[in-house]
Amino acid sequence: MEKVFREPVHDFIHVNHQIIYDLINTAEFQRLRRIKQLGTASCVFHGAEHSRFSHCMGVYHIAKTITDHFSMQYPLEWDPDENLVTQCAALLHDVGHGAYSHTFEGLFGTDHEAVTREIITSDQTEVNAVLRRVSPDFPEQVAAVIAHEYPNPQVVQLISSQIDADRMDYLLRDSYYTGAVYGQYDLTRILHVIRPVTNGIAFAINGVHAVEDYIVSRYQMYQQVYFHPASRAMEILLRNLLARAKDLYPENEAYFNQTSPCLIPFFEHHHQLKDYLALDDGVMNTYFQSWMNATDPILADLAHAYITRHLFKSIKFEKADEEKLVQLKKLVDDAGFDSTYYTGIHSSFDLPYDFYRPNAKNPRTQIEIIQKDGSSYELSELSALVSSLTGTIHGNRRFYFPKIMLENEAFSAFVINDSFYSDTPKIESEKR
Amino acid sequence: MEKVFREPVHDFIHVNHQIIYDLINTAEFQRLRRIKQLGTASCVFHGAEHSRFSHCMGVYHIAKTITDHFSMQYPLEWDPDENLVTQCAALLHDVGHGAYSHTFEGLFGTDHEAVTREIITSDQTEVNAVLRRVSPDFPEQVAAVIAHEYPNPQVVQLISSQIDADRMDYLLRDSYYTGAVYGQYDLTRILHVIRPVTNGIAFAINGVHAVEDYIVSRYQMYQQVYFHPASRAMEILLRNLLARAKDLYPENEAYFNQTSPCLIPFFEHHHQLKDYLALDDGVMNTYFQSWMNATDPILADLAHAYITRHLFKSIKFEKADEEKLVQLKKLVDDAGFDSTYYTGIHSSFDLPYDFYRPNAKNPRTQIEIIQKDGSSYELSELSALVSSLTGTIHGNRRFYFPKIMLENEAFSAFVINDSFYSDTPKIESEKR
Amino acid sequence: MEKVFREPVHDFIHVNHQIIYDLINTAEFQRLRRIKQLGTASCVFHGAEHSRFSHCMGVYHIAKTITDHFSMQYPLEWDPDENLVTQCAALLHDVGHGAYSHTFEGLFGTDHEAVTREIITSDQTEVNAVLRRVSPDFPEQVAAVIAHEYPNPQVVQLISSQIDADRMDYLLRDSYYTGAVYGQYDLTRILHVIRPVTNGIAFAINGVHAVEDYIVSRYQMYQQVYFHPASRAMEILLRNLLARAKDLYPENEAYFNQTSPCLIPFFEHHHQLKDYLALDDGVMNTYFQSWMNATDPILADLAHAYITRHLFKSIKFEKADEEKLVQLKKLVDDAGFDSTYYTGIHSSFDLPYDFYRPNAKNPRTQIEIIQKDGSSYELSELSALVSSLTGTIHGNRRFYFPKIMLENEAFSAFVINDSFYSDTPKIESEKR
Amino acid sequence: MEKVFREPVHDFIHVNHQIIYDLINTAEFQRLRRIKQLGTASCVFHGAEHSRFSHCMGVYHIAKTITDHFSMQYPLEWDPDENLVTQCAALLHDVGHGAYSHTFEGLFGTDHEAVTREIITSDQTEVNAVLRRVSPDFPEQVAAVIAHEYPNPQVVQLISSQIDADRMDYLLRDSYYTGAVYGQYDLTRILHVIRPVTNGIAFAINGVHAVEDYIVSRYQMYQQVYFHPASRAMEILLRNLLARAKDLYPENEAYFNQTSPCLIPFFEHHHQLKDYLALDDGVMNTYFQSWMNATDPILADLAHAYITRHLFKSIKFEKADEEKLVQLKKLVDDAGFDSTYYTGIHSSFDLPYDFYRPNAKNPRTQIEIIQKDGSSYELSELSALVSSLTGTIHGNRRFYFPKIMLENEAFSAFVINDSFYSDTPKIESEKR
Repeated sequence: MEKVFREPVHDFIHVNHQIIYDLINTAEFQRLRRIKQLGTASCVFHGAEHSRFSHCMGVYHIAKTITDHFSMQYPLEWDPDENLVTQCAALLHDVGHGAYSHTFEGLFGTDHEAVTREIITSDQTEVNAVLRRVSPDFPEQVAAVIAHEYPNPQVVQLISSQIDADRMDYLLRDSYYTGAVYGQYDLTRILHVIRPVTNGIAFAINGVHAVEDYIVSRYQMYQQVYFHPASRAMEILLRNLLARAKDLYPENEAYFNQTSPCLIPFFEHHHQLKDYLALDDGVMNTYFQSWMNATDPILADLAHAYITRHLFKSIKFEKADEEKLVQLKKLVDDAGFDSTYYTGIHSSFDLPYDFYRPNAKNPRTQIEIIQKDGSSYELSELSALVSSLTGTIHGNRRFYFPKIMLENEAFSAFVINDSFYSDTPKIESEKR
Repeated sequence: MEKVFREPVHDFIHVNHQIIYDLINTAEFQRLRRIKQLGTASCVFHGAEHSRFSHCMGVYHIAKTITDHFSMQYPLEWDPDENLVTQCAALLHDVGHGAYSHTFEGLFGTDHEAVTREIITSDQTEVNAVLRRVSPDFPEQVAAVIAHEYPNPQVVQLISSQIDADRMDYLLRDSYYTGAVYGQYDLTRILHVIRPVTNGIAFAINGVHAVEDYIVSRYQMYQQVYFHPASRAMEILLRNLLARAKDLYPENEAYFNQTSPCLIPFFEHHHQLKDYLALDDGVMNTYFQSWMNATDPILADLAHAYITRHLFKSIKFEKADEEKLVQLKKLVDDAGFDSTYYTGIHSSFDLPYDFYRPNAKNPRTQIEIIQKDGSSYELSELSALVSSLTGTIHGNRRFYFPKIMLENEAFSAFVINDSFYSDTPKIESEKR
Repeated sequence: MEKVFREPVHDFIHVNHQIIYDLINTAEFQRLRRIKQLGTASCVFHGAEHSRFSHCMGVYHIAKTITDHFSMQYPLEWDPDENLVTQCAALLHDVGHGAYSHTFEGLFGTDHEAVTREIITSDQTEVNAVLRRVSPDFPEQVAAVIAHEYPNPQVVQLISSQIDADRMDYLLRDSYYTGAVYGQYDLTRILHVIRPVTNGIAFAINGVHAVEDYIVSRYQMYQQVYFHPASRAMEILLRNLLARAKDLYPENEAYFNQTSPCLIPFFEHHHQLKDYLALDDGVMNTYFQSWMNATDPILADLAHAYITRHLFKSIKFEKADEEKLVQLKKLVDDAGFDSTYYTGIHSSFDLPYDFYRPNAKNPRTQIEIIQKDGSSYELSELSALVSSLTGTIHGNRRFYFPKIMLENEAFSAFVINDSFYSDTPKIESEKR
Repeated sequence: MEKVFREPVHDFIHVNHQIIYDLINTAEFQRLRRIKQLGTASCVFHGAEHSRFSHCMGVYHIAKTITDHFSMQYPLEWDPDENLVTQCAALLHDVGHGAYSHTFEGLFGTDHEAVTREIITSDQTEVNAVLRRVSPDFPEQVAAVIAHEYPNPQVVQLISSQIDADRMDYLLRDSYYTGAVYGQYDLTRILHVIRPVTNGIAFAINGVHAVEDYIVSRYQMYQQVYFHPASRAMEILLRNLLARAKDLYPENEAYFNQTSPCLIPFFEHHHQLKDYLALDDGVMNTYFQSWMNATDPILADLAHAYITRHLFKSIKFEKADEEKLVQLKKLVDDAGFDSTYYTGIHSSFDLPYDFYRPNAKNPRTQIEIIQKDGSSYELSELSALVSSLTGTIHGNRRFYFPKIMLENEAFSAFVINDSFYSDTPKIESEKR
């Protein structure tokens, strides 16, 4: 069999294994069509409305390209029997993502990675039924890859490392859909120089500049797209809105049963997999739209602000100034806004690259560059650019509040005098 | 003021008029973010998940580029006072689109063009409130442009003609997001040669090949993307699903009140503007997901098929063979599928271009190409390619049915013997 | 061995056969770096300065991609032993091109296709020496492919047919370098659906729109780029310049021996292969620059006009009006310009596509589209666009003359009254 | 008047000032068509055969876009009377480049920047005649801009600074033609945020990431494209070939008079502007081709190697090891190759960016980023990436020798033992 999917990032995606095609057509996987890849950022970059479905298809495509290439070119270093498990893990690596995962997880204690494994291994899912057709323990194998517990480090690194099929796709894809050209890098070249080695994956020296460019692209996408202040304003709004609903629920069960039935299991802390799978962006937005008519003024106001995109404003602050925020919150409260629901802190930091640090909490697999003579270098040894980004986290902290507070004299004075409210785009960097 | 929106099709969209910016931030316009531009086609071309919001922003951008250019270069032929009304009409031309408009309109008698005008002129909307700030009759002016009743034909043609800002954006945009390269044409060139003339819009002769390529692109996008059989299968499924719900409603009011409250006004034929605005793709999909658990087996089955994308199969047929479909439907009924809900006919035809025919029902404004000496030609006189497409509709008719019927011997034999079921991609063409 | 060439049209070109690599490094092939692909058109489209070297590399790349694909996917229909001969023929198909071939051939009776075969089969060349390493008769086999005499029609059609590796590359490449976007078509798709059949090459039905778009691209590139009036003005200038030199030679041997030694064998009609290979664009331009100081005023003037790009102007004319050109030439003569060297006729016509006509002088191999059931259609049966271009030649005739003649009253009146001098871009079409 | 040039990097270049159009049509400017932008690198990146003509057109286009934008948007900060001088300087900034300038200048003491000024100010040139039509001192003004002596620093910085119209074009253009995607950056964005300030040019803060990406692109293009080892091998070959000719000349005047007349004035150290203008790539290559038949075996051999691209091999070395090269040269001599002509050292270093250092020999104008409140930052203060590149030169030193020496045991052993011959792509970096 062969099915061809036309799409703009990889042009054509070929599926020629029945298992892969059947996985795509499961309810759990099709559900990803209803969850946006960039969450709230799609409200800022209006071209970037693509779903997790299209990203997962892309990750599968890259994994397939690599494993086909390995099977052909490196019969000694790579075992073709690993192709299917690698491709399945690539396709399914995000299948547990939910609507607005990051915000949702913070409030309701869900964990999309755990859900991913559960979807794969639970005998209640269509995904599991398809995987079991390969062999009874195949679901566990796929889950092991995603949990970094699969015995073959080559497979694990293809799915999850500092330069894996997941990141290769999302950088290109998010760049394509936002229009942020700095996210483009030379995927063709990387796919040509990637190779299996004894303990994992490495890259031939003649592709070192493509790998360097990939790291730089990652850094730029994080700072310019993923950490965009307006997108984080939407996240704060969403968090506060859901928090308000959660807080109101005990006294307003009937109301929420009627307007937002699928959230009840989460409000009551007894949700199961099927409850989780019932949620998606459309369901959530439908609930938010119904809340716009709530009698609780805060719930109604925040729902309205979210749906019509009326954003909080923000200021940057340094860690040392965190305590001063108490005073700002008080001013917000004094102005008649409950600061619990009308302010928020959003810290965004990324470590673009690091070499292997055996004593680190989560040591990273470093990127290895192989010479013609077989010896290898760690990437940052070869690149001044990568070296400048290695081991340093980059990002900033922002405090969000109602836009109208800028017209409040005390608030405004405080913010300006304390040099809080600055446009300086300086990215805060800290050695890890 | 100036706001810049980054996006991939036009790179940067600049908004420097407060009215435009405020229109974008109305509830009615933000709602377009929740309605996909391509409807069910995004299930076939998985990269094409963009919304009507991004398309409307693009149409505004093109209209702004043209009107700025006209104001600068053609002060005698173009009145800069028309800039704002043109840009507003461009931005708002699709504001009345609803979720899955075409299918929905067929079943519930709504009309997205009428809704567009109502949103603009009703004093209940945020859009109207913003427009009235320009002048009391400004909403009517904008609506007149969209209704083709505005006195200045230049403005009308920029918004609605065979080569207008609307089509210029959607061809490029749908091509960008589907990956269908044949939809690309030379917008830069067209924006350079477009010019205002006494009775409308024309194009300088040195851009004739760009205009020719635009018409060819339009033709190809319709045949390859908009008329894709799988996308039409989704539409049939959607139509039948909604028809089933509508038919069930009188006996099951309570059920639908609980699962799909916002559809009730439509089931009961007394919907108002606010009811229409409450619907979007997410709301509809949420309802469909809840119907998956309905006790009515047909409703549940069709909802499941739609949500998990289990498509009907189809055959092409000629108009002359339409009556034979009765026999096919009977076979479907005999196989235990209610053919009312398990079959469907989908005819798709497009007229890529036509010259002005005074006696036609809807005569088209022909595309005029101006020579250096001021004389002008109708486009098809200058282009063999356009001439071959002029005045001829292209498309086909398809009959949809459950995939499993292909395993039914009688059905299968009938289809094959009557040379119904053919892959022939021949596009049916008829002189208009 | 593997050598990788980075380039913008195909991204990376891989060479992994020593014979191919050694052919690239022959003196005869490297010489193609010094001959522009588009000849005089690079003076009009200043971005298009690419050489025949880069085109030949591209044709090789496409042939390699196809033959690798065939070897893998169609082991029954394609013999992998044909790979090398196909790739060599692709690489070398233009190796006999000379500087400004078309103009040069008209004046000196050379024939670049004959030279191509001679370079391949003559034992005096480096190319032949490399090819002989495969087998003694391998040069003859490669030459047979180029001469359409190779027994396997699949190989012949890949190198020379209405949709061959040669055209596939040059349309994309010339489009990339000129910036003429209409020349872009979906090569990836075509390479996916091309397949070997018993008597040649065919294309699967699901790629029919890509093939259609390729034909349309071809048509547009010819009309807009290859037939550009300014580029043809440069060709007329070149032809007249060389004609003047040839005419002067008998009385000025010493002068030409000194300024342009490599042209002597051509002036004297006894050139050999090595003489032909000594010429390239740089050598010719060097000669033209030295002629700028010639004592013969016509030679000096035409050389100066060519080098500094002072072009003749032109008017279009219909075949029926050809005799009136005598009068125009007389006016040019009367104005003091020798019309032999200061006027010229340039007719450019192309047949974009045709089906097989057994009785035609040069019957074309038609493009076959295969259905899933194995039956096949000729392309124009399936495409309204292609059908409109089939069997019709498109182009026009132009008469070139000194620009200053437009200031001559009699000339100017004649031209305008006889509606000669028209900007009408109507392309003349004639059924073949 | 308006003339439009279609090209792929900027799409359309508009010329609407007669002076600019007439400058383009001068003999001196048309000559740039015959000089490749990348010199010998076009033999390595075979797609990159573009000329200095196309680059100069691009620089003009960028300067025009900026000055038009300034005139419109910043009437207080920018004087529109500076538009023409800026555009002329942009167009002509490289008009003095010769064939293989860098190599040629090293051997014959020419200076392309001095020639540029001479072409502009000498009353012998067509360029000067066109410029004088503006005003008698206009040529001097244009020359002053190029010499950094023009009083208005805004104009000077647009033509020559760390982010000027020259670099903006060549990075994009060389990237487009080589296919090296890392050279692409967001020109549209930069042209939107560039603005005139009192003492020069600055960039608005909301474009800081585009400026950052431009610096990174510059760094990558230098390391990967401009410093490519194979391209430098061609330069060494060229240098040694010309050196041999120069050394042979005194004893072989007749030979060189016959084969390479235009080089004589340079051999004899009395060249004038017209002699310089008589040279171009084609003339030089024509001479090299004739030298292939020279009786001097070294001249013939090097000419043959150059024309058929048989490259020297190379090793990298550190400055400290320079003296060891004496031993390597001796081994080359011993093997029968005159090391004067068969070896060479090529050091390539670039300083990607630096801030203003008042005490430096050539202090650089730093890139200023302006905040909304009018205050400004130096670029590296805002960007970790740029900061890592600031004030550090990057590059390496290579020693070139005949490939066959690698088969020489002593040479090979020496090279390997001393860890000379290493593929390590480590770029040597030195704080300035």
